[in-house]
Amino acid sequence: MRTSYAVGVDVGGQRIAAGLVERKGRIVKDKRTLTPKGGPFAVVDAIIETVEELLIGLHPSELAGVGIGLPAQIDFLRQSVEYCTNLPLAGVDVRALVMSRVRHEITIDNDGHLAALGEFRYGAAHGARDFLMITLGTGVGGGLFVNGQPYRGSRGLGGEIGHMVVELDGPPCPCGGKGHIEAYLGRAAIAAKGRVAAATYRGRAILDEAGGVVDEVTAEAVVKAGLKGDELAVRILMDAGEVLGHALVGFVNMLNPQLIVVGGGIGESCGFMVERAAEVIAAEALAGRRDVRVIQAELGNDAGILGAAALAFDEHDSREGLHR
Amino acid sequence: MRTSYAVGVDVGGQRIAAGLVERKGRIVKDKRTLTPKGGPFAVVDAIIETVEELLIGLHPSELAGVGIGLPAQIDFLRQSVEYCTNLPLAGVDVRALVMSRVRHEITIDNDGHLAALGEFRYGAAHGARDFLMITLGTGVGGGLFVNGQPYRGSRGLGGEIGHMVVELDGPPCPCGGKGHIEAYLGRAAIAAKGRVAAATYRGRAILDEAGGVVDEVTAEAVVKAGLKGDELAVRILMDAGEVLGHALVGFVNMLNPQLIVVGGGIGESCGFMVERAAEVIAAEALAGRRDVRVIQAELGNDAGILGAAALAFDEHDSREGLHR
Repeated sequence: MRTSYAVGVDVGGQRIAAGLVERKGRIVKDKRTLTPKGGPFAVVDAIIETVEELLIGLHPSELAGVGIGLPAQIDFLRQSVEYCTNLPLAGVDVRALVMSRVRHEITIDNDGHLAALGEFRYGAAHGARDFLMITLGTGVGGGLFVNGQPYRGSRGLGGEIGHMVVELDGPPCPCGGKGHIEAYLGRAAIAAKGRVAAATYRGRAILDEAGGVVDEVTAEAVVKAGLKGDELAVRILMDAGEVLGHALVGFVNMLNPQLIVVGGGIGESCGFMVERAAEVIAAEALAGRRDVRVIQAELGNDAGILGAAALAFDEHDSREGLHR
Repeated sequence: MRTSYAVGVDVGGQRIAAGLVERKGRIVKDKRTLTPKGGPFAVVDAIIETVEELLIGLHPSELAGVGIGLPAQIDFLRQSVEYCTNLPLAGVDVRALVMSRVRHEITIDNDGHLAALGEFRYGAAHGARDFLMITLGTGVGGGLFVNGQPYRGSRGLGGEIGHMVVELDGPPCPCGGKGHIEAYLGRAAIAAKGRVAAATYRGRAILDEAGGVVDEVTAEAVVKAGLKGDELAVRILMDAGEVLGHALVGFVNMLNPQLIVVGGGIGESCGFMVERAAEVIAAEALAGRRDVRVIQAELGNDAGILGAAALAFDEHDSREGLHR
């Protein structure tokens, strides 16, 4: 039976966003909440409540299933959470816990993979066969499409583009490594540079975006000041764009993608950072630089929701032996 | 018709190695020569002479074709050489030039891709579906297998693992970039460190391997001294293994491979360097570290020949509509 709806849930370090989604990608109902700061069960409960609210009034037979994107390394076949930097979910059987209350098929996947799937099915990467998605948010993640299919690696743990080394003895990364991309481009890294700037006279504009309190400078405050043209904020973000570009040079040389989509809260709000990265690629990558377009994601905050819903539809259809 | 032989040619920065290869991977006749230092036509002529010599006495119908691996970025569909760091072959129509004299089907590909194909078909990666091959030689290259198939990227230019950034403002790379893997692990980089060491009192063992002449210290001299236990040489190679490990941490996090095969002249001759890289991965990669084995290639100098021959067989069989 060709079900009409799926629920997509995008669990981020800061927010849980979920939507009831039609097959064509329209979100007919949505629900957003802050990610609880307590232990794993607080997070799982918040997911369950969010899903239950979206299902009110829906007949069970109308639902293909529920897809959940987590900021975590997921063993996709076993549907287990192996590693999670920014939330206490490692080892927690999120799928079983949610399924025991929400009596529908649940599928979990890495949030970067699902953002890529969302942009592929409904957004900026529509029709692309070989592309890389990189999401810049609390963490830095992503997903790879190979021959028109999501590529998760041998066990589904791939896509952790944020944890590639770009500086051998570089700054510490939340994962425990050093010099990883996320240590330059994650919200925490950009906010830290913003705070240093905001403590100086020339950082006034950044400070203003944080209500005058240095300790409350966030990555978003830096982006806002940058978009208004503040010199220091622009410098911080252009430097970040340069790091992004150098990291992507390596991907272009290694994977020869036709498209790179930059998404996530920071990536989508800061066009000039993405343009700077594209310039670095055009100047420094080998022959593959001529093949690759570097663009911003199109689906905004909805990429994760839509990707998670697309996963639920795909899993449902493959269970039922349907083909898209 | 099921042909019995293919010719595989492996063109390196230093040597051209070629072999007449049976379907099962036995090299029945081989030929090695130094890569001429003149212009592109000298290199192409050397390839032609090598192939012609291998074909003496063979009936044309016995030959599936000729595969040629080049240390270059190849547009695989167009069969054109797009970029070549270590030899003057960019823009040269190697395939047409060779085919005009050797009247058999010629297929060219990147040498790293072919080393991977060789190890997959006949060597260390037999049966692996998702693996990464990295070749450490004059250049640093490699190839990626995805779902049991070579993955060349959107146009065949992928596999340039040597040109990933591991240090944002690092040492210059032969390609013009900075801080690329090759700038640490290519023969030139290891030889340069060996020369600095050989000029000091403690570098005696390295100097001895170079006949007592500092300027003649090669990467091989460093490896030889290292294998004999010389402290300075071991230090240079362990440092290289560490860089290799950090680079591979990123690949494990991004691609979740089940296997990494380290080959090429330097990679195959220096087991403790590969072990050091494996230790770094075990300590620093995310959950995918538990899936991945890091091993040395098995086919030695023959990987490129066997991979090139495997490509010629595959292309022949696909032209004839045969399936392996």
